[in-house]
Amino acid sequence: MPDYRRRAVRESMSVRVDVNGMMAEAIADRGVSRDEVDALAGEAGDAARTLQARRAAGELPFLDLSQQQQVLKQITTLAAAVREQLDTLVVLDVGGSAPGIRALLDALGAGGMRVLLADNIDPWTFGHLLDEIDLTRSAFNVVSRSGETAETLAQFLIVRDLLLRALGAIDYKDHIIVTTDGEAGELRQIVNDEGFRDLIAPPGASGRFSILNAVSLFPAAAAGIRIADLLAGAVWMDARTQSPAVWENPALLLATLLYLAATRRERNVVVFMPYCDRLHSLAAWFTQLWAESLGKKQDLIGRQVRSGQTPMAARGATDQHAMLQLLLDGPHDKVVILLRVEDHEREIAIPAGYGDLDGVGYLGGHGLGELLNDEQRATELALQKQQRMVITLTLPQLNAFTMGQLCYLFATAALLAGTLHGVNPLDQPAIEEGKRLTYGLAGRKGCQEQAAEVEAWLAGKRTQYIL
Amino acid sequence: MPDYRRRAVRESMSVRVDVNGMMAEAIADRGVSRDEVDALAGEAGDAARTLQARRAAGELPFLDLSQQQQVLKQITTLAAAVREQLDTLVVLDVGGSAPGIRALLDALGAGGMRVLLADNIDPWTFGHLLDEIDLTRSAFNVVSRSGETAETLAQFLIVRDLLLRALGAIDYKDHIIVTTDGEAGELRQIVNDEGFRDLIAPPGASGRFSILNAVSLFPAAAAGIRIADLLAGAVWMDARTQSPAVWENPALLLATLLYLAATRRERNVVVFMPYCDRLHSLAAWFTQLWAESLGKKQDLIGRQVRSGQTPMAARGATDQHAMLQLLLDGPHDKVVILLRVEDHEREIAIPAGYGDLDGVGYLGGHGLGELLNDEQRATELALQKQQRMVITLTLPQLNAFTMGQLCYLFATAALLAGTLHGVNPLDQPAIEEGKRLTYGLAGRKGCQEQAAEVEAWLAGKRTQYIL
Repeated sequence: MPDYRRRAVRESMSVRVDVNGMMAEAIADRGVSRDEVDALAGEAGDAARTLQARRAAGELPFLDLSQQQQVLKQITTLAAAVREQLDTLVVLDVGGSAPGIRALLDALGAGGMRVLLADNIDPWTFGHLLDEIDLTRSAFNVVSRSGETAETLAQFLIVRDLLLRALGAIDYKDHIIVTTDGEAGELRQIVNDEGFRDLIAPPGASGRFSILNAVSLFPAAAAGIRIADLLAGAVWMDARTQSPAVWENPALLLATLLYLAATRRERNVVVFMPYCDRLHSLAAWFTQLWAESLGKKQDLIGRQVRSGQTPMAARGATDQHAMLQLLLDGPHDKVVILLRVEDHEREIAIPAGYGDLDGVGYLGGHGLGELLNDEQRATELALQKQQRMVITLTLPQLNAFTMGQLCYLFATAALLAGTLHGVNPLDQPAIEEGKRLTYGLAGRKGCQEQAAEVEAWLAGKRTQYIL
Repeated sequence: MPDYRRRAVRESMSVRVDVNGMMAEAIADRGVSRDEVDALAGEAGDAARTLQARRAAGELPFLDLSQQQQVLKQITTLAAAVREQLDTLVVLDVGGSAPGIRALLDALGAGGMRVLLADNIDPWTFGHLLDEIDLTRSAFNVVSRSGETAETLAQFLIVRDLLLRALGAIDYKDHIIVTTDGEAGELRQIVNDEGFRDLIAPPGASGRFSILNAVSLFPAAAAGIRIADLLAGAVWMDARTQSPAVWENPALLLATLLYLAATRRERNVVVFMPYCDRLHSLAAWFTQLWAESLGKKQDLIGRQVRSGQTPMAARGATDQHAMLQLLLDGPHDKVVILLRVEDHEREIAIPAGYGDLDGVGYLGGHGLGELLNDEQRATELALQKQQRMVITLTLPQLNAFTMGQLCYLFATAALLAGTLHGVNPLDQPAIEEGKRLTYGLAGRKGCQEQAAEVEAWLAGKRTQYIL
């Protein structure tokens, strides 16, 4: 395909970001004015330039798309080998990268091998999963960048023991693929000692930012997802999000408007509501991305800030009957991001019937996807009429190329929003405390103190406060 | 079983509500003092008395458990008949009762017929569902209390047409069961005209409050759930939530503390986080319950209030890697409700392995469920150490009896919280606007004006705000 035609095809598959519903022209004082945005343009431009400079300096390897493309062949080759050998891939991942993997699988997975994601340690569900699969026909992808995630390691020990019993000490190794840090951590040590097949999780990428690297791409490829198209979508969005000009860069515009909404309009909740079932898990990934990247105690120079917008996942049209009442009539504390898929690529005609009943007859002759998209528009306008802040993203279709754009768009927007808030969007320091307390309860060496702390706290609970 | 033994069994299965983590003794000024609660005791007591008076006056038929018990036999008989005849039950319900149905199915469904819930009109998922089932072996439960829900009626027209073609105009009727209002609405008219089998949705019950009546109980019974035990759990909790004394009534205590958190401590987000995969959908139901019941523009005497706490569903341990950073370090704007299942009834031992690695070896010899519950405790304490408000509910086990308690507890707490906020927890007036706009787009009679309104609004969008 000549370049100009490829470009035209991609242009026609470009994700659009519509911020009309954020602006004063639509919702008066509840919105932000163009002047308010422009007043922040310098700061926003600096954030964009800093981001690109950090990428160029190699500080954000997980955003290095050319590096991802270099490992693409390794990933597809490995996925093809596993698919040829076995029927099912079980991803063991109770860490930060699980929501991204699920988002890809639920949006696009089809046509490859069966891929199951074990993202919790509930013995009921994990046991059910183990009951369901044929061990001898299953591969297990153990995913933990740190190599220390207690829950994932517990799953791994259980699976390893089962495989050893079923297949013996040599053959079982063919059923395990480890994704972890290239150098450090317990899992890297185990890979070195045991000789498992492995993939490298790029350094510095918290799980939420792993949606476009080997961590997610390997299970995606196994599930039959065109990961080259995913990366092409990311590259396409990357080109659109280079500019330091806020009105030309959709990621910067999203970050700037959400920052203004949080800091100047007290919009401390962001609702992410796709009108597409397959994007429901993307909403969960966005939830994680926004919560962990912006929810911080301190800013970069150590001042206490207690920042963070609370993200809330919803799904159209279903949650019109569950959340919309609050979104329309509740406090003016939210921004609602609606996602619309223009062409669902499948349509189901609604047959005529009961034409004499006013509340039924009008439906005949429409399509189910048409009705869904009408509901999206109706909700968008209803929100605007109540002066609620709304952003609408439109995907021409849902495919690997548009999905790659979305992932890259929001990951970049989160980094830029972090910079605007003055916090580090890449870390999650607070969760270490809970990990240490768990280690204590589980008797990990050097954590006796934590065990005693939990015991003392439990003993100190007042029974009159327990009903 | 003698009464005293039955009572002892039930007592041992009683759900416990632990509010230590809300109180000043645990989190100092961030918490509420016993005095603050007691100062509200009069108002809270009035709310409880009003609720019981309204029930006694027959104003809340959906909370009338003795009435539910009277229809129990009808429901179980119908479910048994359908299970005998057919393999799969598809519930068509894109309305407010869908989250409650899903909560029951996901928590307890097993052993009965296959029950699928079609809760959206995405043509992709609905088409996939139709591809999957054998029409001639499937029953369809059409659920809409109002009988006018556009999305559910659209599904119904599609299914009806398929059934008519496959089975003919007589036999197809055996495959449809309608749950709707006893007297009014288009669906009631259709039942009367066509002679479908039907169940009655009690009047006045918005979908979220239908979790313990025929609307939810029929699909639950079809899925093999012991609905008599569900109701027994509700009755058990009902007995515990009669008292007007706030420290004796767990529903009143929940409502009072969440009200105080919202109005005196600016806690405008409530996180619902079960450490149990099967309760994840209950979190979605809670989300709806809290959002729709409390998110109001006006109070009962017409003053503008813009009330509402934003509910957020999470799942332990998974979301410790997705939300916890925000919950610990973000703004002090949340109450976190943790749910713990003491005995998961299934345990998976973690085998020893890699004993020489400090980050792995400690796990051996523990159980997966034990680790999950350790994580719940660790998270609870970590939150308290950051002076976050926490409530912990403990279920001795997850079964129909404890699930019935939870449903009744939260439904009652929502009604009481509504009264404390001075709003009507039973309605959802705001969503009518969006419905009318959708009608307009779909060409329903009398809604031309709305269609024109949408067109004008779309035409007025500024292209410079679309990137």
